[in-house]
Amino acid sequence: MYTCLSPALLHLYDVSGSIVVIIDVLRATSTIAEALKNGAKSIIPVDSVSACIRLGKQMDVITAGERDGKIAEGLAYGNTPFHYPPEFIKDKTLVLTTTNGTKLLHMAIAENASHIITGSFPNLSAVCNYLIEKKENVVLACSAWKDKINIEDTLFAGAVISRIKNHFDINCDAAVIAEEMYYKAKDNIYEFIKAKNASHYSRLMGFGLEEDIRFCLREDIANVLPIYEDGRLVTHHV
Amino acid sequence: MYTCLSPALLHLYDVSGSIVVIIDVLRATSTIAEALKNGAKSIIPVDSVSACIRLGKQMDVITAGERDGKIAEGLAYGNTPFHYPPEFIKDKTLVLTTTNGTKLLHMAIAENASHIITGSFPNLSAVCNYLIEKKENVVLACSAWKDKINIEDTLFAGAVISRIKNHFDINCDAAVIAEEMYYKAKDNIYEFIKAKNASHYSRLMGFGLEEDIRFCLREDIANVLPIYEDGRLVTHHV
Repeated sequence: MYTCLSPALLHLYDVSGSIVVIIDVLRATSTIAEALKNGAKSIIPVDSVSACIRLGKQMDVITAGERDGKIAEGLAYGNTPFHYPPEFIKDKTLVLTTTNGTKLLHMAIAENASHIITGSFPNLSAVCNYLIEKKENVVLACSAWKDKINIEDTLFAGAVISRIKNHFDINCDAAVIAEEMYYKAKDNIYEFIKAKNASHYSRLMGFGLEEDIRFCLREDIANVLPIYEDGRLVTHHV
Repeated sequence: MYTCLSPALLHLYDVSGSIVVIIDVLRATSTIAEALKNGAKSIIPVDSVSACIRLGKQMDVITAGERDGKIAEGLAYGNTPFHYPPEFIKDKTLVLTTTNGTKLLHMAIAENASHIITGSFPNLSAVCNYLIEKKENVVLACSAWKDKINIEDTLFAGAVISRIKNHFDINCDAAVIAEEMYYKAKDNIYEFIKAKNASHYSRLMGFGLEEDIRFCLREDIANVLPIYEDGRLVTHHV
């Protein structure tokens, strides 16, 4: 199992044939888990705002996404989990583009990952259970912020490692760093990233999004497994 | 002050006009400090074995370097601090090429760093004192291992941050990660990287280089400041 702390380092890892866990804690992969938990039929990740708008015109879908932490111009909804309650999202298809997470997902597709799933604290257990069950090579891939390593994605990678390391060979220093950071933070992850003034925490707080952050750091409150199949993220059923 | 954990991320930082601290704890920057402390006139860092051999033929210098942790073929000496005692190195010029550290140094030159210095535990205080005195923008640049983040360079960055952060704005998540790792490890850095089975620790132990590792993790035992001037690393005198 390998841990990649930035998309700019992904080429160093053997992605081809591996399960790649896309991690974008604040907020893409948390929002994806919440939308699927609330009954979304599927989520189509796209890597540009224009592709998102175009699909919105072609199909009966909800267009959503952000750039730099705010709803992108031309899109109807943003990257907040609270936009997608069951009464709104059930049986609908969401087309989503985000600054970092959907870009990384498309990199994993291009590199021929065997399976692509998305991970966040709201679906931590679902991710861990799937990885243990599959027992294949894994790359924990952090979305970071414009390729700069961030604390929250590193912490989530560490949370996964702390739970499943006995099932895998862990042979990279980044995994050690992620796991140690998680042990340091785990008693109260929100307070940790607040105390450390994590860069994306500060950015989102500036937009008044404290409740989004708190949601995204809560374990197993949207405990489904999003898996990428035929161009869409859907709920994986065992 | 920024912290860059891999050469593959260096382009994300504003290197131009900044002081760049090249960090290659095991072993290049530790060996550089030791050779200068022991009276080497200068050290010429080159980015290839062939350039090292060529300079050795053209000038009265000592050629040294490693690839993959071992003395590179065609070179007389390696990357171990114990190769350069005063009776051998005094007033001599060393031409040095290493897998990661000298490559990163040349990247910093290409990006127009205002000053380039090298940092390691053996010269930790000299580095910190220089940075506080200069009070310019700083990039702490870890050499990593073939672009993969490593523990020991991250720990050294954390050591610097822990000592001088009150003099600088620290506004990147990688700095938080480095500093937290350092606090975790600082009571006994050797035991920490041994317990975590750090990748380059394991590699060097496989070559029987435990004493090299122990040397490279000892603070202030070669407390000089190597600075890059006119193509050479020389001792900076205040």
